[in-house]
Amino acid sequence: MLPITFTHILDFIGTFAFAISGIRMASSKNFDWFGAYVVGFVTAIGGGTLRDILLNVSPFWMQNPSYVFITAFALLFVILFRKQIVKLEYTIFTFDTIGLALFTVVGIERTLASGFHFWLAIIMGMMTGAVGGIIRDILINEVPLIFRKEIYAMACVAGGIVYFICYKFNCNIILTEVLSAIAVIATRVLAVKFHITLPVLHSEEE
Amino acid sequence: MLPITFTHILDFIGTFAFAISGIRMASSKNFDWFGAYVVGFVTAIGGGTLRDILLNVSPFWMQNPSYVFITAFALLFVILFRKQIVKLEYTIFTFDTIGLALFTVVGIERTLASGFHFWLAIIMGMMTGAVGGIIRDILINEVPLIFRKEIYAMACVAGGIVYFICYKFNCNIILTEVLSAIAVIATRVLAVKFHITLPVLHSEEE
Amino acid sequence: MLPITFTHILDFIGTFAFAISGIRMASSKNFDWFGAYVVGFVTAIGGGTLRDILLNVSPFWMQNPSYVFITAFALLFVILFRKQIVKLEYTIFTFDTIGLALFTVVGIERTLASGFHFWLAIIMGMMTGAVGGIIRDILINEVPLIFRKEIYAMACVAGGIVYFICYKFNCNIILTEVLSAIAVIATRVLAVKFHITLPVLHSEEE
Repeated sequence: MLPITFTHILDFIGTFAFAISGIRMASSKNFDWFGAYVVGFVTAIGGGTLRDILLNVSPFWMQNPSYVFITAFALLFVILFRKQIVKLEYTIFTFDTIGLALFTVVGIERTLASGFHFWLAIIMGMMTGAVGGIIRDILINEVPLIFRKEIYAMACVAGGIVYFICYKFNCNIILTEVLSAIAVIATRVLAVKFHITLPVLHSEEE
Repeated sequence: MLPITFTHILDFIGTFAFAISGIRMASSKNFDWFGAYVVGFVTAIGGGTLRDILLNVSPFWMQNPSYVFITAFALLFVILFRKQIVKLEYTIFTFDTIGLALFTVVGIERTLASGFHFWLAIIMGMMTGAVGGIIRDILINEVPLIFRKEIYAMACVAGGIVYFICYKFNCNIILTEVLSAIAVIATRVLAVKFHITLPVLHSEEE
Repeated sequence: MLPITFTHILDFIGTFAFAISGIRMASSKNFDWFGAYVVGFVTAIGGGTLRDILLNVSPFWMQNPSYVFITAFALLFVILFRKQIVKLEYTIFTFDTIGLALFTVVGIERTLASGFHFWLAIIMGMMTGAVGGIIRDILINEVPLIFRKEIYAMACVAGGIVYFICYKFNCNIILTEVLSAIAVIATRVLAVKFHITLPVLHSEEE
């Protein structure tokens, strides 16, 4: 048994928040418990799984059943506290943002560890954070939210760029990770607070 | 040339039934023959393909053109017997359930053969049986049926659990496979007969 | 630095046209710039990526940032020339068809180079050309266009068959590639010109 580190705790928090987001979306479509579980699980592990398939390494969750259990716990949580969950909006947003930051950093580091260039690491960091939500929206048959609302993936890109700068300046690894994560969190929080969005691409008729 | 075994025959029956299910769904959306073929093929091979990608082994259908031919035969069948096919509902259900049982057992065994834990084998058995239908529904732009109706994936889980129990008791491999397949078939048939469904996850406003 | 060959130029043209097609579709759904970029990128690289995952080789775009830049250039192009782009319909169609032909030939050759049979190479050639558009349509939440309209994937199959015939007759490789590409282009152009479509599979009620 490996000891549970601070990173593990952040990973559990992020996985839980991502799964909750999937399960809540599924509930809005009246999925059954199985459907909600699958959507929650895929939201939590989808980004990292696509990353690992592209990097040709074994998907991270296949060696460790904890993601299966965390998703089950998230489903139980939504079933039990369905009515109260709206009051927890702020907490869930916080957890989700922590998850986004961690997943971005993990995505960058896994890509570099596989010997790829930094431009790909930034893309993979973003993919790790954002693809789960895209698959979630495909499964519930909606246009992916991320393509129309909110600075979300861009926060991952900001984190990737900060990571790159620290890396070029030979910063300490822990400092690099923390600054990169802060960049993700700050970008997202500021974007939500000040309603900053990307420009929309208008259709040709408009 | 390998001799055709009983397992091959079950595999052909299952593939045919899964392809029929995809092609019929495509016809309800007025896809052209090519579109119907692709949906049928992906319904038949999608689950096993995702499993093999995750296990990092070469997808099973890429060494053997029989799946391509069986799907073509299924398309021809639907084109020729479009009006009569509703009368075959019971036969198609039987074939489909045989396919589900076989695909579950194959999924479990391929995962164990790749050296993974049993919890993953149960997930992979379910994935082999159920993911083809999910991709089918995404391709025809509908919410996956499996998330809202019928005990389907749960039948695969039941088969996986029976396999696990037999495995723990060191049962003979053939007996293990047969009991596991029976568990899948019995769960599905009983669920359909007695209209057993999973609880629905209601949305937060309800 | 590798020298830029004629094939590279065709590849850039095809990638650009495929990305444009994705970005325009995204604009019709009012995606933001990020969403449009992702849809454009995935349209351009999706087919080849699925092919490479199935062949278990490293996805082609991960070693070379040019696809990332070409997609960015395509986005810029659509943003700047949104109103004028309809007048370029013919040029874009030409570029797109060149891309389809090249991607088909590349898909066939990559598959043969991985040691697979020719029937799979034809499928993979088609997949390289057509899957990007399917993923594009899933991302914008529409039924894939290719399943209902136009001879598109069939043009890739025609190219594959011509490649196979040349291969059997031991034609020179350059001649084989050119004839195969011409088959793709001719099939598509003739199908569009004479409104040739595949038969539709009518639903069971009709």
